Amino acid sequence: MSTTALPADFLQAIAEGFPADFLTREPGELLEYGRDWTRVYTPAPSAVALPRSTDEVSRLMALCHKHRVAVVPSGGRTGYAAGAVAAKGELVLSLKRMTRLGPVDLLGNTVRVQAGAITEAVHHHCAEHGLTWPVDFASKGSSTVGGNIATNAGGVKVIRYGLTRQWVLGLQVVTATGEVLELNGALEKNNTGTDLRQLFIGSEGTLGVVTEATLKLTPLPGKQDVFLFAVPDVAAVLRLFRDARQQPSFLISAYEFFTDRCLARLQRHRKVRSPFEAPSGCYVLLEAEAKDSAALEAWLGSLFERGLVTDGTLAQGVQQAQELWSLREGISESLAATGLPHKNDISLPVAALEAFCGELESVFAARYPGWEICLFGHIGDGNLHVNIMKPDAMEKAEFLAHTRQADPTMFGLVKKHGGSISAEHGIGLLKKDYLGYSRSPAELELMRALKRVMDPQGILNPGKVLDV
Amino acid sequence: MSTTALPADFLQAIAEGFPADFLTREPGELLEYGRDWTRVYTPAPSAVALPRSTDEVSRLMALCHKHRVAVVPSGGRTGYAAGAVAAKGELVLSLKRMTRLGPVDLLGNTVRVQAGAITEAVHHHCAEHGLTWPVDFASKGSSTVGGNIATNAGGVKVIRYGLTRQWVLGLQVVTATGEVLELNGALEKNNTGTDLRQLFIGSEGTLGVVTEATLKLTPLPGKQDVFLFAVPDVAAVLRLFRDARQQPSFLISAYEFFTDRCLARLQRHRKVRSPFEAPSGCYVLLEAEAKDSAALEAWLGSLFERGLVTDGTLAQGVQQAQELWSLREGISESLAATGLPHKNDISLPVAALEAFCGELESVFAARYPGWEICLFGHIGDGNLHVNIMKPDAMEKAEFLAHTRQADPTMFGLVKKHGGSISAEHGIGLLKKDYLGYSRSPAELELMRALKRVMDPQGILNPGKVLDV
Repeated sequence: MSTTALPADFLQAIAEGFPADFLTREPGELLEYGRDWTRVYTPAPSAVALPRSTDEVSRLMALCHKHRVAVVPSGGRTGYAAGAVAAKGELVLSLKRMTRLGPVDLLGNTVRVQAGAITEAVHHHCAEHGLTWPVDFASKGSSTVGGNIATNAGGVKVIRYGLTRQWVLGLQVVTATGEVLELNGALEKNNTGTDLRQLFIGSEGTLGVVTEATLKLTPLPGKQDVFLFAVPDVAAVLRLFRDARQQPSFLISAYEFFTDRCLARLQRHRKVRSPFEAPSGCYVLLEAEAKDSAALEAWLGSLFERGLVTDGTLAQGVQQAQELWSLREGISESLAATGLPHKNDISLPVAALEAFCGELESVFAARYPGWEICLFGHIGDGNLHVNIMKPDAMEKAEFLAHTRQADPTMFGLVKKHGGSISAEHGIGLLKKDYLGYSRSPAELELMRALKRVMDPQGILNPGKVLDV
Repeated sequence: MSTTALPADFLQAIAEGFPADFLTREPGELLEYGRDWTRVYTPAPSAVALPRSTDEVSRLMALCHKHRVAVVPSGGRTGYAAGAVAAKGELVLSLKRMTRLGPVDLLGNTVRVQAGAITEAVHHHCAEHGLTWPVDFASKGSSTVGGNIATNAGGVKVIRYGLTRQWVLGLQVVTATGEVLELNGALEKNNTGTDLRQLFIGSEGTLGVVTEATLKLTPLPGKQDVFLFAVPDVAAVLRLFRDARQQPSFLISAYEFFTDRCLARLQRHRKVRSPFEAPSGCYVLLEAEAKDSAALEAWLGSLFERGLVTDGTLAQGVQQAQELWSLREGISESLAATGLPHKNDISLPVAALEAFCGELESVFAARYPGWEICLFGHIGDGNLHVNIMKPDAMEKAEFLAHTRQADPTMFGLVKKHGGSISAEHGIGLLKKDYLGYSRSPAELELMRALKRVMDPQGILNPGKVLDV
C-alpha cells in the first residue's frame, strides 16, 4: 500500500502523543530523507518522523499499523539499491536521533548501541579499549548500525571477519504492529528454537525496524602489511589468491582486485602515477597480518620465480599503505568522474569467477562492440563490481535503454554460474524485477508468506525487495 | 499430530514408488532409530525410512504431507534434548544412507556433502588438503552434518570459530510439502532478500529436512599449545579469561573450565592423578595458537606474580596435550559413572557468569543443603554445563521429583541474568515446557506463525521445540 497524504486522525494522534519536533514536513528534509545514494527515483515522502527512543518507535508503528500508514525505515541512506527511498508518499522513520553508545563490556567483548549510531563512531568508541566492530567500508562515516544490520553489510574485511550477521549478538526490533522484540540478549550461544534475529538481518526494513543492537567486538588487528601486485588476467588473480590462502604465515585481511581500465580512469581523474613501470591486465591489493614474518617474506620472494605475479610493491609505512588503498578505493569515484558507469554488484562462487568473467567479456564484445567494462571488487569473496561505461559518442538515453537490455543478459550469466545478482547492495526497488534470477519461485513464495506473517498490513517498506 | 499406525494407502505408495529396503519396521531398528542420547522417552516409531537421495526424501515428504504422516528427521541421534526421539508412532526419516562427500574446492575452500555424512569423516576428507570444517565436539564420530546444522551445533572451538551457522554456505532442504529448496549455492555474499538458510539452521527438524550442504572450510590451525591452570574460583576464571583475551600474542582456540568437584569425580572414575600438588577451586584449560611465542611465554611467566593463577602446567607434546584435554572431556562420563547427574546446558552473558554462579550456589545451598553441583563448560562462550548430583542417600524417584522443582528455580535465575536455558543442546521435547524462560510471548507467537507457514499440516517433528 502507499499513502500520498497522511490521515488526519493519524496526524492528530502524533500531535497529541509525541514531542512537537517529532515530525517534519519541511521540503528540504523531505528531499533529503526521501532518498539514498541511488539517483533513480524522485523522493516524495509525506513526512519524516524522528523518534528519540524505542518507546517512540513502538508507539509510532502501532499508530501506523492502525491507520495503515506506509513506513520507510531510514538509517544513513548510503544504500545503492533504493531500499531507503520514499517515492510514494511513505512516512520516513529516521533513526538519526537514536545514537547512544553504551559502555564497552570488556569481559564479554560487546557493546550495546542504538540503531542510529554511525559505524565509524562505534569504531572510535571501541578502539579506546583495543577492540573493534569489524564491519568496515567506504561509507562508514555516514552509514548507521541499523542500516548495516538491515542490509547485512559487507565491505572490504569480509574475507577475514565475515558479514555483519556474524557481529550482532542481540537485536532489539520493533515489529510492524509496534511490538518490541528483544532477541538473543548478549548471548553467544542460545539454542532455543528459531533464531528470529536472522530474519531481520538483511531484511531491508521490510520485516521490522531495528532500534538497538548488542554488537560483538574483536581485538583490533595487529600490524597490517599492504601489497599491490600486477598480474596479467583474472585467472592469474585467482591463482595468486589460491596460493595466498594456503599460506600459514599470514592472515588475509583483504584481497581486492581491479583491472587496468579502472586504473587508467583513476589516473586520469586523480592524476596519480601507477606504482608500476609497465601496465598490466589486473592488479591485486593484498592486506595481510603476518603470523611469521620470515615465512611471509620468503613467500613474497617466491612469487616472481613461480610466475604468480609480474610485478609487486610493498607499502613502506602507513602513508604508502593509504596510497595503495586509495588506488582501490578511488575507483568508484573515478569512474563516475570520467564517464557514466552503469553499476552492478554481483557475486559468484569463487571457483566460477574465471569462467564468468570470460563469458561476460565475450558476450558484451559481441553484442556491444567497443563498450568498456570496468571490473573491480572483493574478489576473495567472489564479489565483483561490474561497471559498464557509456561510450562517449552515445546519448545517455540510448545508453540507458541498452543497459536495461544488458542487465538481464548479465543476470542470466550470473544465474548460469550459480551467482547472486546482489552481493552486498541488496534488492530495494532497483533490483526487485530481477530477483527471480537469484531466488527460485518456491523461495519467493516462502519469502512472501513470511512477509505476510511479519507485516500483515503491508506497511513496512512496501514494494521493496518483493511485492507481496 | 501423531500416528500410531501408518495408513494403508501411504504404505502402498511407498511399496510402489521406493526400493524394497526403503522402509524398515524391524523391532531392534525401531528401538535404535526411535531415540537419541536422552533416555527419558520410550522409543515408539511406526517405521524407519532410509532414503538414498534427495529425490527420495522429496517424494517421501510429499506422501507424508498428503497422508498426514508425522516425520522425525534423524541424523546421528547424539542429541541431549530428545529432538530426534520418535515416541508417538512417528515415521523416522534417517539420512544415514546419504553420506556422499564431494570434491574439496581448493579455490573457494568449500565442500558439498550429503546430510548423513559423519562430522569426523568430513574432517578427514578435508584434512588431506590442509583444510577443516571447524565444527568439532566429543560426538564427532557419530554426529552428522545434517544434525549439526539442524541443531546449530556448538562445541569446544566456538570461541575461535563460532557456531555451525557460520560454516554453512549452501543448504539444500526438503520442505514439509516435499519441495526441494536450494539455498545460497556456494556464495559468501548474497544480499537478495530474506536468507532462508537461517530459518532451517537450528530448527531441530521442525521446519524442513536438511539433505545436502555446501560447507565453508578454513585452513587447519597451526601448532596448538595446551595449558591447564589452577585458580581459586569462578571470579578468577573470568579474570584470567579477560586477561588472556586481551593478549595480541596468541589466538584462543578453547577456554574451558571445570570445578574441583568435577576433577574429584574424574579421579575416582579414571584413576588419574591431578597434575597439581594442591587442590584448587577451579581449573582452566586454555588451548592457544601462538602468534608471537616469546610474548606468549612472557605472558605465562607473568601469571603467577600478577596473581592470576595459583598453579599451571603446559603440555609437552601431543600426548600430554591429550591427557590435559581428557581431564576436561572425561568429566561427563565420570559424573555418570560415579553417580546420577541431573544435567542442564545453559548460557549466560559472560559478564553475568560470576553473579549467576554465586546465586546458584547459594540458592541451592539454602534449599537443598549438601547437594553437590558440578560445574564445567565452554566458559569463554558463557556456556555452563550444570550437573546436580543425586545425594547418595536419596532414592532416585525422590531426587527426580526434587530436580523437577529445581529446574524452574535455576531457569528463573538464568532468565534474571539474561541467559539461555539451552546453550547448545536445543529444546526438543526435554525443555519445551521451559521455553518461556528464554523466549518472550511475542517471540513464541511469531515462532508458531512461522511453523504454520513452513509446515501447514504440522507433520515435521511435531511436538518438538514448541506446540503450535
